Amino acid sequence: MVSEQYRAMLGGKSVIRILSEFATKRGEEIGYDNVFDYSLGNPSVPVPEEFTECMIEMLKNSDPCSLHGYSPSLGIPSVRAAIAASLNERFGMNYGPEHIFMASGAAGALAHAYRAVTKPGDEILTFAPYFPEYNPYVNLTGAVLKVVPPDTESFQINFDAFEEMLGEKVMAVLINTPNNPSGIVYSEETILRLADILRKKEQEYGHDIFIISDEPYREIVFAGVKAPYVSRYYANTISCYSYSKSLSLPGERIGYVAVNPACPDAEVIVNMCGQISRGIGHNCPPSIIQLAVAKVLDKTADLSVYETNMNLLYDCLTGLGFTCVKPGGTFYIFPKALEEDAKIFCEKALKYDLILVPGDTFGCPGYFRMAYCIETEKVERSLAALRKFVAAEYGNIG
Amino acid sequence: MVSEQYRAMLGGKSVIRILSEFATKRGEEIGYDNVFDYSLGNPSVPVPEEFTECMIEMLKNSDPCSLHGYSPSLGIPSVRAAIAASLNERFGMNYGPEHIFMASGAAGALAHAYRAVTKPGDEILTFAPYFPEYNPYVNLTGAVLKVVPPDTESFQINFDAFEEMLGEKVMAVLINTPNNPSGIVYSEETILRLADILRKKEQEYGHDIFIISDEPYREIVFAGVKAPYVSRYYANTISCYSYSKSLSLPGERIGYVAVNPACPDAEVIVNMCGQISRGIGHNCPPSIIQLAVAKVLDKTADLSVYETNMNLLYDCLTGLGFTCVKPGGTFYIFPKALEEDAKIFCEKALKYDLILVPGDTFGCPGYFRMAYCIETEKVERSLAALRKFVAAEYGNIG
Repeated sequence: MVSEQYRAMLGGKSVIRILSEFATKRGEEIGYDNVFDYSLGNPSVPVPEEFTECMIEMLKNSDPCSLHGYSPSLGIPSVRAAIAASLNERFGMNYGPEHIFMASGAAGALAHAYRAVTKPGDEILTFAPYFPEYNPYVNLTGAVLKVVPPDTESFQINFDAFEEMLGEKVMAVLINTPNNPSGIVYSEETILRLADILRKKEQEYGHDIFIISDEPYREIVFAGVKAPYVSRYYANTISCYSYSKSLSLPGERIGYVAVNPACPDAEVIVNMCGQISRGIGHNCPPSIIQLAVAKVLDKTADLSVYETNMNLLYDCLTGLGFTCVKPGGTFYIFPKALEEDAKIFCEKALKYDLILVPGDTFGCPGYFRMAYCIETEKVERSLAALRKFVAAEYGNIG
Repeated sequence: MVSEQYRAMLGGKSVIRILSEFATKRGEEIGYDNVFDYSLGNPSVPVPEEFTECMIEMLKNSDPCSLHGYSPSLGIPSVRAAIAASLNERFGMNYGPEHIFMASGAAGALAHAYRAVTKPGDEILTFAPYFPEYNPYVNLTGAVLKVVPPDTESFQINFDAFEEMLGEKVMAVLINTPNNPSGIVYSEETILRLADILRKKEQEYGHDIFIISDEPYREIVFAGVKAPYVSRYYANTISCYSYSKSLSLPGERIGYVAVNPACPDAEVIVNMCGQISRGIGHNCPPSIIQLAVAKVLDKTADLSVYETNMNLLYDCLTGLGFTCVKPGGTFYIFPKALEEDAKIFCEKALKYDLILVPGDTFGCPGYFRMAYCIETEKVERSLAALRKFVAAEYGNIG
């Protein structure tokens, strides 16, 4: 018999996916250039040339049996060492290779982190607005994801609601800064306060509470914004990283788990990741990609286009009268819709070939997300559509 | 708190891994050339040149954003279509792309298959001798792996024991032909009889019983041996394939699930695989590897070396008086040890720098495995060590 649990999931298509398919279809009708598709968080700038050169060099000159051979289950030792050294240099940490576990993207890293620190029935808290895939990611492990309502003033943490929900069954707190979908970077003050509350509750409850820090947007931070390295502020931190966004290679599935050396169980957790892999069929990211990424750890794709796009949109949106917290990073912006129901608002926007995603999907009704990882030229052209849409549907709101 | 379930697994190191580490250490002492390391099933012949050329060509000439972009969750459509066409051509099947799910190696494919057709508490039967990783693979899903004792005469299926164990809770039967560790290929007669029994029991119990067919060695079949394509004999078959062995790229993590189109739930199962991925952090094999493999689907590495090695070992072993079923494929041979406890036998062999793996690990005590995916020149030199070992420890047994 096929599994009823997974069969039941087949109906539920993601709103983002439906909108993206709509955009593709509409593009076939009127030309994709004329569809302002802000639905998908897919990098739009090329991988650094050094990555490509390094791949070609290895393919030409390495022994193929060792190049394409099995990676040890925790990752290739030289790659783990290079990542540890790079993080130490950049963030003042003291990782060794024994604190790094290679994973196939952030999804793979998170799949290990959840299992390492929870058992079925335990709770993980996350904060709205949040990446909706966290629901299947966590709930299919048997743990339970609970969502703390947003602080819509700043999209930092709603601490009152958080403290109310931080019961004894909470074993981990899942954060994502810079944040998808708000684009907000958690301030040092936010992280200090979060760490402080967690340490107190660890004492009160007599068990660990981990921070699982999902950091795929860590390198996409805009001018003047400081993005604190979460692990510096809290010993029991498990950082989950992906190179998808910083190097523009989301399809190649490469990232890692880094456990703070100050965490008493750090090495145990990394070794446990190797065991968790056996149950979920993971078995390491591709060897050649591990080796190539290790050569460009401190490079990024040219991420400046995202900041250019953000400024164009932010100025236009606020000029039109939208309420909008200015993003500190990522390639998302999360303004308040011009009517209560953001689903209706986004539905109306479709008439102007603007593909916007209602905030309901992210646990934050009344707002909408724009993923501006598209060409700047297209962002510029979309502003006229945005102005037309607002004027026609909502009149002068300024 | 770290997960006690995974923490408890940390002690149990695999015997194969321990022996392989011993071989490496010994190699550092006396030169790796002098250690006859038959412990690991790691391909020893290079990937076909066409694969390397195709990778370089794409890296040089493709748009990097699309080359390294996200794969759809079931795999890249053109790749799925190419695999279906290749299987249809070679095995007379009628797969469409909708029956193929791209997975990161056989481990990834199996992780999806188990979850698609069992729920916690269900049973999966497999047949000794068997790949020991099946234990964590299955048991960490919540289903229960039960092992049917071997037919040591032929290493085909022990049908009496099988029928006794085929109770109502069995939802799937996991087979591996050509087999690791025996090297045996299931005959058409074996597969017909297996299929027949399963169909009867499906009727009797009123529920599906799936064959999960783990086929990483499908292309490594020796002269004169016919390896039937399992799915042709049984509608409810889920084939799990990996290119690790046929193309010699185990580190690149590429394979697929192919569900027999005659299975009434075939398309549902493939779509469910996409949902299962969300819970286990899978998210597709690397895009560039999917695209490159699609170009060399009908090629293999030069696998003939394995047959050469097998014949050398088989002749020597039988000449020395070993009881040994002749392998029909793979790069393994599984002779009977010269004393009851194969662990003691293999321990003694270490004195002669022969690294052999006791069959206990494979659910078949009294036998031992040799993985002869090493250079032929080394196999040749190992024969003298083998003769010396047998003469010194067991005298003339011929």
